[in-house]
Amino acid sequence: MDHFMQAALDEARAGLGEGGIPIGSVLVHRGVILGGGRNRRVQLGSTVLHGEMDALENAGRQSADIYRESTLYTTLSPCAMCTGAILLYGIPRVVIGENRTFLGEEALLRSHGVDVEVLQEPECIALMEDFIAASPDLWFEDIGESPGPRAS
Amino acid sequence: MDHFMQAALDEARAGLGEGGIPIGSVLVHRGVILGGGRNRRVQLGSTVLHGEMDALENAGRQSADIYRESTLYTTLSPCAMCTGAILLYGIPRVVIGENRTFLGEEALLRSHGVDVEVLQEPECIALMEDFIAASPDLWFEDIGESPGPRAS
Repeated sequence: MDHFMQAALDEARAGLGEGGIPIGSVLVHRGVILGGGRNRRVQLGSTVLHGEMDALENAGRQSADIYRESTLYTTLSPCAMCTGAILLYGIPRVVIGENRTFLGEEALLRSHGVDVEVLQEPECIALMEDFIAASPDLWFEDIGESPGPRAS
Repeated sequence: MDHFMQAALDEARAGLGEGGIPIGSVLVHRGVILGGGRNRRVQLGSTVLHGEMDALENAGRQSADIYRESTLYTTLSPCAMCTGAILLYGIPRVVIGENRTFLGEEALLRSHGVDVEVLQEPECIALMEDFIAASPDLWFEDIGESPGPRAS
């Protein structure tokens, strides 16, 4: 597996070990990881620290010039919020572990010229499939959906 | 001024008093403020806690049903990241203090059926005009732009 996707997957698995939602991410600039992160909904009660947001937060304050030479790696297709953060900071490239269990706003990213690559890594897919099967309510909360209507 | 916009403006002014970027927000559900917040870039070195994001974070974990009956008040037009968070959580109404100093992704919000109201409050406009004039580099950093090309 790609070295940086492995780092994102390591973050996701660390989150699972903490009882959290297993989605991880790293922000990479010229081959160096500026920050890694993972979904913190359970661990911190956070509604904004999705994996990608946590990676951006942990990378710290960067100039626009740095973001515009960076790549964001994430184990799962980015939701509307994380997509918006990528667009805000002008990150030109996003590498996605998988989009089989959740398809985020990849079309919006591409429409803004972002280079989006989806690896469909079996390990990323299995991790989310197992998590969603085990904790559907937590998963629906994380993507702003109500489990009720889906179950009806 | 609208009571909730006043609360958002109070948050913005508190941020300015801390040396921060003066943008504030409150999330309101059925007439009750669930959480208020302000831009935390300077105070916490945060790249993700814009005013709207901080309000969502401070409102804590809520079900989709709550978000879908809520209104987000913000002193400034929401950027791509904050817009994405509004869409993720399905918040149906956004009340904006002003969009003269920065026009965010209001069109994207409206295209998803969000009710967007812009008050053009003179106090909100003056607060941001004064801040941008005093701290342009900080402002450009916050919206992911490089001050260099603009100055050239």
